[in-house]
Amino acid sequence: MRFTPAGDSFSHSTMKVFSDATLNDRALALLREGLAGHEMVRPQKLATSVLAKSEADPALLNAEVAFGQPDVAGLATATRLRWLHLSSAGFTRYDTPEFRAFAAERGLVVTNSSGVYAEACAEHVLAFLMAQARCLPAALGTQVANGAPEWLAVRHGGVSPRGQTAVILGYGAIATHLVKLLAPFEMRLLALRRHPRGDEGLEVVTPESLAPALAEADHVINILPDNAESRQFINAERIAQMKRGAVLYNIGRGTTVEQNALAAALHRRHLSAAWLDVTDPEPLPAGHPLLSAPNCHLTPHTAGGHRGEDETLVRHFLGNFRRFCAEEPLVDRIM
Amino acid sequence: MRFTPAGDSFSHSTMKVFSDATLNDRALALLREGLAGHEMVRPQKLATSVLAKSEADPALLNAEVAFGQPDVAGLATATRLRWLHLSSAGFTRYDTPEFRAFAAERGLVVTNSSGVYAEACAEHVLAFLMAQARCLPAALGTQVANGAPEWLAVRHGGVSPRGQTAVILGYGAIATHLVKLLAPFEMRLLALRRHPRGDEGLEVVTPESLAPALAEADHVINILPDNAESRQFINAERIAQMKRGAVLYNIGRGTTVEQNALAAALHRRHLSAAWLDVTDPEPLPAGHPLLSAPNCHLTPHTAGGHRGEDETLVRHFLGNFRRFCAEEPLVDRIM
Repeated sequence: MRFTPAGDSFSHSTMKVFSDATLNDRALALLREGLAGHEMVRPQKLATSVLAKSEADPALLNAEVAFGQPDVAGLATATRLRWLHLSSAGFTRYDTPEFRAFAAERGLVVTNSSGVYAEACAEHVLAFLMAQARCLPAALGTQVANGAPEWLAVRHGGVSPRGQTAVILGYGAIATHLVKLLAPFEMRLLALRRHPRGDEGLEVVTPESLAPALAEADHVINILPDNAESRQFINAERIAQMKRGAVLYNIGRGTTVEQNALAAALHRRHLSAAWLDVTDPEPLPAGHPLLSAPNCHLTPHTAGGHRGEDETLVRHFLGNFRRFCAEEPLVDRIM
Repeated sequence: MRFTPAGDSFSHSTMKVFSDATLNDRALALLREGLAGHEMVRPQKLATSVLAKSEADPALLNAEVAFGQPDVAGLATATRLRWLHLSSAGFTRYDTPEFRAFAAERGLVVTNSSGVYAEACAEHVLAFLMAQARCLPAALGTQVANGAPEWLAVRHGGVSPRGQTAVILGYGAIATHLVKLLAPFEMRLLALRRHPRGDEGLEVVTPESLAPALAEADHVINILPDNAESRQFINAERIAQMKRGAVLYNIGRGTTVEQNALAAALHRRHLSAAWLDVTDPEPLPAGHPLLSAPNCHLTPHTAGGHRGEDETLVRHFLGNFRRFCAEEPLVDRIM
């Protein structure tokens, strides 16, 4: 038995940690190392994607901690579970009144991995914004001669974000980071937040006061998660409220946008471009209206990704595991 | 005759201003308006490009001020000329010992338009840097499914510039602006400057001390103008000094890079990517090695361009014209 400081005996008790997180070998080794002294159980079948529904697993039964994307039904049988750490930022499957009530009743703490993806997501938005500002889609690979009409269109098409207005839909870890990246451009930034707290450090609007903000925005940056309130939030009415020539970005969830209305707005040039990392479904089926809409630029849900992502994910979990053992508040707590 | 304050009679004398700058109608109207009370002369043939050699023009003969890209030989005959304002940032044709001696002897002040293009150029570099950081060339339009091998390559390919090292070759208006845009990334930034002044606010290296900086840099950002010293500056030897996997950016002039050596370095993956807004010649001829080099991303010399560029150019000149009339120091003075 190891020496334990007075009052800290809990932090050294052996815990059973279930993890169905899909990890590369380096990240898995990091997890095993970080959980040395505790019992780690892996399921027979790993979660293949945060967007796919995982299945109940008997290994979860006696776990006190779960890290990954465990099945919602399976969690009901895990009577010893005290903390669930999701390996994603999105948590649609768990974001139901039923699950929230279940978690509250059981005293189950739920955290997510939004801290892992926030930086990459904010940088993805900046990459989109700068590619738009510098006409990269038209310019890249266009070896037209200086002075030609096509050249003049690209040469004189760029518009600096400096002094422009952007509305950020959803104010959380990604938006906070994005605001820092945009600081040198001295833009007018507004954020949509359902329940403003007053500590945002920029102008906050609610869904009720959003329309005038949309009418002013050069850029509408959608970071909304998927839930009952956000579904189809960017509908035909809100698109019509945006000013002509505005640009829409989406790195939240595809379900938050009425996609046919967006395609139509691009066709009639009401919106000058859309930059979407997420769609509904993913990938879009052949022939989908967004695939042929003008100036619709798509990346395949890679905004949060980065080199060493699995390792970052494990380090983020282990940071919370240390806090859990020390009975400190957990980061990225959602329930 | 207008009232002129004591000691300011010079500012209200009528001047003859030659301009061969190629301008759209709005910008030309702005120029005429700004020069009201003075005589503006336009040549019979306008400069078609800053990269093309313009021809001698009789209209230049009696001008005191010239704005555009006047012919070097023609300037010798313009005995009344006191100030030349170039409509470009680059000034290769004027950057010779002969012309510098001629300007010094005549007391001819020469300014350029670097202030007009600095912001757009710096933003173009940021657009390149972020597109690289977020794998945009591979991600855009790639509707691969979540979890597929091609998807994993893009999803896990992104690397944040945060904390990375960049060497900026050429420290002037563009670099100064770029440093501000990169501030949120807390990068290690070094600048190459032939004659450090000590007021750069970042680590400065000279051509003699460049090698260790190149060996450390994740990003080598080339903003060098074209002149006798800069030609082929990025040669095979300096490319070999760069660390494996580094990325080269060029928004200066194509002549500063040994292009065959660059293509070879991309083929053997010594450099992981190149982002070039300038090449030699422009556009590159079909079959040029850079066109088929892996991860070589080209834009057609559009880095300095922006919407309203002609108007910005005229406003920048008129600002200096006001200073010239008031005998104040001119901005962007190069000789």
